[in-house]
Amino acid sequence: MSKLVIVGTVAFDAIETPFGKTDKILGGAATYIGLSASNFNVDSAAVSVVGGDFPQEYLDLLKNRNVDIEGIEIVKEGKTFFWSGKYHNDMNSRDTLVTELNVLEHFNPVVPENYKDADVVMLGNLHPAVQQGVLDQMSKKPKLAILDTMNFWMDIALDDLLSVIKNVDVITINDEEARQLSGEYSLVVAARKIHEMGPKYVVIKKGEHGALLFHNGNVFYAPALPLEEVFDPTGAGDTFAGGFAGYLAKTGDFSFENMKTAVIYGSTLASFCVEKFGTERMQNLTDKEIYKRLDQFKSLTQFDIELT
Amino acid sequence: MSKLVIVGTVAFDAIETPFGKTDKILGGAATYIGLSASNFNVDSAAVSVVGGDFPQEYLDLLKNRNVDIEGIEIVKEGKTFFWSGKYHNDMNSRDTLVTELNVLEHFNPVVPENYKDADVVMLGNLHPAVQQGVLDQMSKKPKLAILDTMNFWMDIALDDLLSVIKNVDVITINDEEARQLSGEYSLVVAARKIHEMGPKYVVIKKGEHGALLFHNGNVFYAPALPLEEVFDPTGAGDTFAGGFAGYLAKTGDFSFENMKTAVIYGSTLASFCVEKFGTERMQNLTDKEIYKRLDQFKSLTQFDIELT
Repeated sequence: MSKLVIVGTVAFDAIETPFGKTDKILGGAATYIGLSASNFNVDSAAVSVVGGDFPQEYLDLLKNRNVDIEGIEIVKEGKTFFWSGKYHNDMNSRDTLVTELNVLEHFNPVVPENYKDADVVMLGNLHPAVQQGVLDQMSKKPKLAILDTMNFWMDIALDDLLSVIKNVDVITINDEEARQLSGEYSLVVAARKIHEMGPKYVVIKKGEHGALLFHNGNVFYAPALPLEEVFDPTGAGDTFAGGFAGYLAKTGDFSFENMKTAVIYGSTLASFCVEKFGTERMQNLTDKEIYKRLDQFKSLTQFDIELT
Repeated sequence: MSKLVIVGTVAFDAIETPFGKTDKILGGAATYIGLSASNFNVDSAAVSVVGGDFPQEYLDLLKNRNVDIEGIEIVKEGKTFFWSGKYHNDMNSRDTLVTELNVLEHFNPVVPENYKDADVVMLGNLHPAVQQGVLDQMSKKPKLAILDTMNFWMDIALDDLLSVIKNVDVITINDEEARQLSGEYSLVVAARKIHEMGPKYVVIKKGEHGALLFHNGNVFYAPALPLEEVFDPTGAGDTFAGGFAGYLAKTGDFSFENMKTAVIYGSTLASFCVEKFGTERMQNLTDKEIYKRLDQFKSLTQFDIELT
């Protein structure tokens, strides 16, 4: 069992989908990652910042799922990061309606003393300089550093991003972002170029089309579970990353073979996340539900072929 | 070993992709299906029509791959069906530049006497009334009738299409067409609605995102092999269908479990088709190459999870 450090936003989200809309609810990359990773009973700590307006019950919710919140700074006189978005009918694209950085604007992450020797670090989507700042605080090089990012940072902070990408073992990124970062349309070629930027493992997330794991010319594919209905895609990518990181932290086995299983766990947890608004479905997920769905993933993908 | 009847176009294609363009080359649904199915050494017959302008060498090519061409009518004074298209840079969409129906306009399919008792019938993309005409000529109900179609027939011949769909066991259709036919965005719901139209098995092809096989609430997913480069997607869907039908005809086992393997074979063969222009890659494919790629599909999708 390895310790897991999670850095990312803890935030308010307001979400509109064809199925309805929410007021300000609990959101943020570190929240989704933490809730997802908590299913593996690892010792994890969230590193983030919130304002004085952030309800204690949200912090308690993370704490009760065994996510250490000592690293979540509370800026009493500040306001919590707020994002609002509206999904189009196909659920594959969305418009951002509001982004209020608030306390995130001057965020200096502080890794709790007890977590500076963590084996696994999950750098959720944030300014790459903040992600690097977390790596710099570690007392020893983590055995596995995983980075998630988005096109926004490629647009405004590419040098910082390329610099932190050099220092991680795994990058998780969506297909369009992989194309933007590499300048290549083919995901196979894009993965190879990103591999050359530093990460030994490249995970390309394709939303409803699943995820690809690349390593040294090898590739593994995890489908997304075909669902009757995607209710709210918010947080699915972070939930995937949290499941991936949580499973790897739990097993302490960072081989390609074990990463395949980690990708399946990530996809499995993400398939729950999209069933309800925000973090709702992730708050009370049971092991039994997870095992049942893993079984569905097996039926979905396993086949017999005798090669003669 | 079951006999296989294939109906579809045998045609000239002229193709333009970002990698180059061709003159009039061999194309057509029945051509791709026949070449693909020929890898299973089944007794197959193509039912189609060509004009007097169609080169004997193309017919010989099919014959040499063990595809019976008695059912390919040659209208001496007529011209062969011609299609020309240009792919966009992403290879996922294309513009049709020319469609000349020619001899296809008055096509009356004739199933060779020796194939009227075939167990497997693959109805390639054609006017649904022609597809039904082939079924009507069978001396006994085939054990497995598979239908491929496209949005064009939904637009101009929906009643005929719904009528033939009632009479088949399997439909293969792409994701957008499944949505159009069912009026449902979710592919899970779309498959259920199409299932209610008749076919016990629904295969939804998602191009570079693989294919889904639905049956009675069960679902199986075959990814497409991630390729460095898609050179020419023309015929990939028909090649998929030909591999699917060919494997099922060879094994004579029409169970859901065996259909999973058939879908993997279909995806495997389609992954070759797109590597070169037109049918070029499919003309000299060896069993060794196919087995090697099947192995890649296994590595791509198989994983170990112990559920505790």
